[in-house]
Amino acid sequence: MPGIPTIDDIRAAHAVVRTRVHRTPVLTCYALDEMTGANLFFKCENFQKCGAFKIRGATNAVFSLDDDQASRGVATHSSGNHAAAIALAAKWRGIEAHVVMPEQAPEVKKNAVAGYGARIYFCGPTAEDREVLSEKVLSETGATFLHAYDDPRIIAGAGTAGLELCEDVPDLDVVMAPIGGGGLISGTALAVSAVSPRTKLIGAEPEQADNATRCIEAGKVVPASNRETVADGLRMPLSRLTFSIIRQHVASVVTVSEMEIIEAMRLIWERMKIVVEPSSVVPLAALLSRRVQLPAQRVGVILTGGNIDPASLPWSRS
Amino acid sequence: MPGIPTIDDIRAAHAVVRTRVHRTPVLTCYALDEMTGANLFFKCENFQKCGAFKIRGATNAVFSLDDDQASRGVATHSSGNHAAAIALAAKWRGIEAHVVMPEQAPEVKKNAVAGYGARIYFCGPTAEDREVLSEKVLSETGATFLHAYDDPRIIAGAGTAGLELCEDVPDLDVVMAPIGGGGLISGTALAVSAVSPRTKLIGAEPEQADNATRCIEAGKVVPASNRETVADGLRMPLSRLTFSIIRQHVASVVTVSEMEIIEAMRLIWERMKIVVEPSSVVPLAALLSRRVQLPAQRVGVILTGGNIDPASLPWSRS
Repeated sequence: MPGIPTIDDIRAAHAVVRTRVHRTPVLTCYALDEMTGANLFFKCENFQKCGAFKIRGATNAVFSLDDDQASRGVATHSSGNHAAAIALAAKWRGIEAHVVMPEQAPEVKKNAVAGYGARIYFCGPTAEDREVLSEKVLSETGATFLHAYDDPRIIAGAGTAGLELCEDVPDLDVVMAPIGGGGLISGTALAVSAVSPRTKLIGAEPEQADNATRCIEAGKVVPASNRETVADGLRMPLSRLTFSIIRQHVASVVTVSEMEIIEAMRLIWERMKIVVEPSSVVPLAALLSRRVQLPAQRVGVILTGGNIDPASLPWSRS
Repeated sequence: MPGIPTIDDIRAAHAVVRTRVHRTPVLTCYALDEMTGANLFFKCENFQKCGAFKIRGATNAVFSLDDDQASRGVATHSSGNHAAAIALAAKWRGIEAHVVMPEQAPEVKKNAVAGYGARIYFCGPTAEDREVLSEKVLSETGATFLHAYDDPRIIAGAGTAGLELCEDVPDLDVVMAPIGGGGLISGTALAVSAVSPRTKLIGAEPEQADNATRCIEAGKVVPASNRETVADGLRMPLSRLTFSIIRQHVASVVTVSEMEIIEAMRLIWERMKIVVEPSSVVPLAALLSRRVQLPAQRVGVILTGGNIDPASLPWSRS
């Protein structure tokens, strides 16, 4: 298992990424404070380059390669924000990015990755299809594989958002983040617990992808459930690395229903007038549904991204 | 005809509204700069209280009443952002608001106005229905009627957004705003031409509601065309007051097609991750479609509001 990043790793990552990515704003919303009873501070990574926090980890990882490694390029498999982030970071460094993605990935995601100049390799729908093709690409190119979250460089990069949040909003009682594979909450927890030790970390995940909850109950990494959720960025399993960080630094994990996610997203759009993707709003959904209650507390909430096709919104589908 | 507000009136309005409304941020977007060739500075009134710049004029007008006038309340007829703004400003002052709106107005708009505590009077669909009921309400209540734009207090309030824009972004070459009844562009033009005389004003309106263009061609106020446009905030006719200000201070007016409006709106949502209503994006649509070209110029653009039902977006309908 790769090592757990330290606060020094996260600070070093910040020095790498801060000149290349946005220092995203922290927004507040009176109406949502009223509705939840908490004082919410939203770290708006939906305004980030590539439209998601993923560019932080990708940039840190790509720029941490030595020149020899870099010359052989980087590779990943993903059909989501991580793939686009790796493609853009590689473009910034002037190296090749190789991205394995399922043939059935949405056109908009293929276009985003291709638009940043990455080479795309289409695989079949199964995990095995993906693994086989990834191995082939790696052996042919010698590229460095960059996993979406099971990588200390990616986690340290993700942690820079939490670092900025603590700098911009002192004295937070709680920081909340969604949990998918666990990279964001891991980086956030490491950063926040180091710079603001009294601040409690709370993770939130969909009931339909309650992998962290089930790992915590089992006391070990268990296979991911593979159910559909509107929060499509949160369907990955924890890794041993992210689970060990979560177990150590995250006070609790709450789950929310699909309807609660959709309602929270609609409220953010309506009240804050910002575009967020469903994965972003899972922590707010937990507050709105009273699955976690933090009356009068100062709560930082990381809004992870804003990449959604506005022509297919969840409330349009229902 | 009521008098044209001066810059002193606008500064006085700013002193009234600044403690009650948001000083909205100015956002930039690299991708939209690339696509238009201009340097764009978006004044984000979509983040304003009530979700639109209308609260500026409403607040100024409501707080400019003397106590005796105020005690009899205020009235307006509108089914849009102005009605909600009057309702909220009246609530802040602790006086009654009487709003005449068509029975068929969308539920969401009725709810917004009712939610701020205004009394709603439902009228039939025609202008005559509305006038008759408005007269009745005014004579029964003695309330002060506050027109949505044909009123110097409303125009001076609207101008405070332009004032803030010029303070926050010096040396603008151009400021662009949409034109409906002409209240916003009038206030903007009066503010900008006073504090930044070299800055050029450009208005934009839908082809389907090209009232300003036709007034300028005719050299006088002509009846409004009554065609449908997705930019539903821009269907009102100019008044003699707003036309006279536009004629004096606005360098040019451009028109855009419905498709251009929808495409500009989609781009703002996708690239800036903010929620705007169609009326807001008409100036950007003019730039994107090359109907106005401002290469390398510093262009302030007022995004007027963000009140749209996310369940019925124009690109979902098509």
